[in-house]
Amino acid sequence: MKVFKIPEATVMRLSIYSRYLRQLIEEGVETVSSGEIAAGVGVSSAQVRKDLAYFGEFGTRGVGYKVEDLYGCLLKILGLDRRWNIIIIGAGKLGSAFALYQGFLDRGFTISAIMDVDEKIIGSELDGVKIEPLELLQQRVTEKNITVGVITVPAPAAQDVTDLLVASGVKAILNFSPRVLKVPNDVILRNVDLSVNLELLSFYLALNNR
Amino acid sequence: MKVFKIPEATVMRLSIYSRYLRQLIEEGVETVSSGEIAAGVGVSSAQVRKDLAYFGEFGTRGVGYKVEDLYGCLLKILGLDRRWNIIIIGAGKLGSAFALYQGFLDRGFTISAIMDVDEKIIGSELDGVKIEPLELLQQRVTEKNITVGVITVPAPAAQDVTDLLVASGVKAILNFSPRVLKVPNDVILRNVDLSVNLELLSFYLALNNR
Repeated sequence: MKVFKIPEATVMRLSIYSRYLRQLIEEGVETVSSGEIAAGVGVSSAQVRKDLAYFGEFGTRGVGYKVEDLYGCLLKILGLDRRWNIIIIGAGKLGSAFALYQGFLDRGFTISAIMDVDEKIIGSELDGVKIEPLELLQQRVTEKNITVGVITVPAPAAQDVTDLLVASGVKAILNFSPRVLKVPNDVILRNVDLSVNLELLSFYLALNNR
Repeated sequence: MKVFKIPEATVMRLSIYSRYLRQLIEEGVETVSSGEIAAGVGVSSAQVRKDLAYFGEFGTRGVGYKVEDLYGCLLKILGLDRRWNIIIIGAGKLGSAFALYQGFLDRGFTISAIMDVDEKIIGSELDGVKIEPLELLQQRVTEKNITVGVITVPAPAAQDVTDLLVASGVKAILNFSPRVLKVPNDVILRNVDLSVNLELLSFYLALNNR
């Protein structure tokens, strides 16, 4: 399977398509056309076909895609046919929200550890996972085979936490802090800066009011 | 200023550049080159120059950009030279985290209203804003001149809440629910699905382990 040079936007849409396919499965739908997927998620059907074409031939012309098969393929492409263990650093509001977020629980991700520096919350639990002191980070990453770190600490602490995660062997980081972080080339970093998303809205709103 | 057909990825990078420039201002830095911005945020310097070129000539060859001036220009481009009023629907963990998030407080956004359906939390406050019943949505949007809606309700309620926001005149929506939403063409929708971001990581992790 040729999966190099897939645009990031395509991968994000695959994730969204797969979510939509799951809705269809829940609704008992068995086949779907690219046009129906397109309408369901708000892109063009040409875009759906182009995105899926990166990964070979799915579906049958005139018949469409078998929902369950396509869903299974997308899960595999997205790396969701296995388990990924997550460590959350920062058990404040945002970290807690992330820990309790239901959207990914059935999609291959397990929250294996939650760390904080605040002694008032260390020892309490979030969704069955105990909040532990930051000092145990390296040990937990190793013994729980953790590959994904989620950073929900205040901005000034974010780079130090990143360095700790990298040193402990974490290979992918989701950064919620409003800070530009540095990581080595072999570590994947995604910034989920809430501001960036909000500022995309203000950009388009301002555009309409110029 | 020609601002049509700007790629979304460019707008997102402008937001990140502007954040980095603010860091530089805090550090007392007065001028910066495209190479330094590039290194600071982890893109190529050609990318920085290309992104900025959409909006005309900034900077001086061999001297670079005046940090304060460029920051001011970017804020204007991003529509952050004015105030945007936000309504949050859903005051659970995620809504609360968003309401208390510090990243955008000084960037032109004001949380003007927070709604929920849970009588146990209606009447309590989040960062000085009272949580009110969903029935007051239309009224609050009108009287507080709200243009941005943030959806942090469970997935099954998301489309109904979206329809309410659209009917009340909100023109931009940030959707955190793991649900594909439908909006009219004149409403801007951004999905900040935490799963999508996590699944980008698993895609790349799986790619390295195929």
